[in-house]
Amino acid sequence: MKIPPDLLPEGFRDRLPPQAEVAARVSRAMIDVLTSYGYARVAPAIAEFESALAERSGGAARNQHLRFTDPVSGHTLALRGDITVQVGRIATTRMQESPRPLRLCYHGQVLRLKAKQLRPERELTQLGAELIGNDSVAAACEIVGVAIDALEAAGVKDITIDFTLPDLVERLAEKALPLAPDKIDAVRSELDMKDAGGLSVLGADAYLPLLAATGPFDAAVEKLRAIDAGGALASRIQALESIAATVAGRANVTLDPTERHGFEYQSWFGFTIFAKGYSAALGRGGTYYIDRADGPSEAATGFSLYPDPLIDLAEESNVQRLFLPLGTDAATGAKLRSEGWVTVAALDENDSAAVLGCTHIWINGQAVTV
Amino acid sequence: MKIPPDLLPEGFRDRLPPQAEVAARVSRAMIDVLTSYGYARVAPAIAEFESALAERSGGAARNQHLRFTDPVSGHTLALRGDITVQVGRIATTRMQESPRPLRLCYHGQVLRLKAKQLRPERELTQLGAELIGNDSVAAACEIVGVAIDALEAAGVKDITIDFTLPDLVERLAEKALPLAPDKIDAVRSELDMKDAGGLSVLGADAYLPLLAATGPFDAAVEKLRAIDAGGALASRIQALESIAATVAGRANVTLDPTERHGFEYQSWFGFTIFAKGYSAALGRGGTYYIDRADGPSEAATGFSLYPDPLIDLAEESNVQRLFLPLGTDAATGAKLRSEGWVTVAALDENDSAAVLGCTHIWINGQAVTV
Repeated sequence: MKIPPDLLPEGFRDRLPPQAEVAARVSRAMIDVLTSYGYARVAPAIAEFESALAERSGGAARNQHLRFTDPVSGHTLALRGDITVQVGRIATTRMQESPRPLRLCYHGQVLRLKAKQLRPERELTQLGAELIGNDSVAAACEIVGVAIDALEAAGVKDITIDFTLPDLVERLAEKALPLAPDKIDAVRSELDMKDAGGLSVLGADAYLPLLAATGPFDAAVEKLRAIDAGGALASRIQALESIAATVAGRANVTLDPTERHGFEYQSWFGFTIFAKGYSAALGRGGTYYIDRADGPSEAATGFSLYPDPLIDLAEESNVQRLFLPLGTDAATGAKLRSEGWVTVAALDENDSAAVLGCTHIWINGQAVTV
Repeated sequence: MKIPPDLLPEGFRDRLPPQAEVAARVSRAMIDVLTSYGYARVAPAIAEFESALAERSGGAARNQHLRFTDPVSGHTLALRGDITVQVGRIATTRMQESPRPLRLCYHGQVLRLKAKQLRPERELTQLGAELIGNDSVAAACEIVGVAIDALEAAGVKDITIDFTLPDLVERLAEKALPLAPDKIDAVRSELDMKDAGGLSVLGADAYLPLLAATGPFDAAVEKLRAIDAGGALASRIQALESIAATVAGRANVTLDPTERHGFEYQSWFGFTIFAKGYSAALGRGGTYYIDRADGPSEAATGFSLYPDPLIDLAEESNVQRLFLPLGTDAATGAKLRSEGWVTVAALDENDSAAVLGCTHIWINGQAVTV
């Protein structure tokens, strides 16, 4: 089959003007925010040894890599599917002697073996910040705040942060609402499906109130507090309230304490970011541990944003393009560009300001509206 | 074999701070220059159907792609090795109705099957501008000027532009210094090797003076002019002089009229960019044709820069990092960041300004030097 010249593989696409310019602008604005909070940029390699990447990725992610045999090394290489994992690798190897907390940020393309139903892209932009060496409430407050700042800088409005407690069931089972170890997974599954009947069948009626402790933060956290857990929840509730307080007035906060999807590797705190007008989540984050081959795992807190939907919906900025007629001298062009103009120079008599999308023409030393 | 956790495949590497920040700064500065000349950003997909990419790449490049079988489509996909080819595809398909000249620019990662001897990287940054629909002297002047501006914005000094005339032998053979068609390739090879003896053996003594017409532009172009080519060279020499004149005072210009390496697809004009302190070329460009499946090929002029060496050698900028002690309120931090400070907030009593690389501490409402 002859492939049409403009056809790209499923999940891949070109960005044309002005969308490609918007993409650059949005990413810059967000990265500038992360940098302003002291997060230093890292740029990990786009491919790694598949075995090493899979081992660090773990779980479902390990089979989600685009793989190829490298004719040079003879090894199987994988294209990265997540930059967070790479930042963890860098933090615990080449930067293991750097002082903690270590603040790192990144921006790049990630690739997926298969598209997800709600996200047809297999090449995605990922951008994020990781605070390595600290998973305290203070770290969580900073990370959530930086994520909101970054989205606001990209022009996102009406942000909602959905909090979760990824290890909630394990913690309750251990400290307050005993469960046989072989039932923990089953209870988690029923909670995932919000299946009250299923919980009862499992003899886990004590976990039923968790299903109701969801929704707008203040009401939901009260329901969580009402669960008699002998104090096992007190510190977690206090932590969530602290984080919610730092966000107050800047984003809506909701709580879904048993939400696990996408938080398989988070420790005590996780969050998902939504915004009005975007059907899918814009990003997520939380606290986690980075496994080290040569020592104890290291605590960290961070977030990842997937800004492609922002870019697709962002508005084009109004660029003023100034047409320079034939014969305009080079120094004039340079001066106008240094003043912030985008200049479009005529190359011959056929070039026309209007056809070339210019808003202005340089006539007699003045920028005249087309 | 167990792969060490910090080992990457040959030709791939991570950029750490501050080099990763330099990379972002250098690329931004260069892209901003291209944009200021009216080049609109495009962001082509990182992977394409291998057969389509190979067909458009042609020649040696077609076998230089990293390839993999896509489990989704069943097709072989290739990671791009050159963005110029992709821009040509976009210009002649989805943007074929856009007015000409069409100015497009790009910035992204390209991947190579094998490293080159002088360039061990297999993941490289490529950044460039293409002026599609025009390959005139005016177009060449603009493109060379934009390339110099971009490099200057990245802090590069002492730039040398080496001009070449990629179709020189064909032109001379056709119009002035007849050669049997089956000897053209042999003559080109001898010229490539600067082998005077080889030219004589081929009975191509008339081409010997080309070997001497190299070096600093003014002297070399005089030697080129002295070749009795019955006027076949006059327009080319005039064109080179026009381009050299626009560059005068901004870059050194040299001439190597028979240089072909890297110019297999250029038409009448090619150039390579060097700068003091960098052993390898920083980029190249020239005039060329974009083949179209559905019509005549289209003339274009452009350049590509490979800024990785710039990034590796660039100096770190002096960033002022301001430590915010515990208890600094959020509004103060926001105000300081809006003033241009990079702030680093203490998360607990153990955090120290000096250890975290801060230059200043916020004390009593003032930024005090550490």
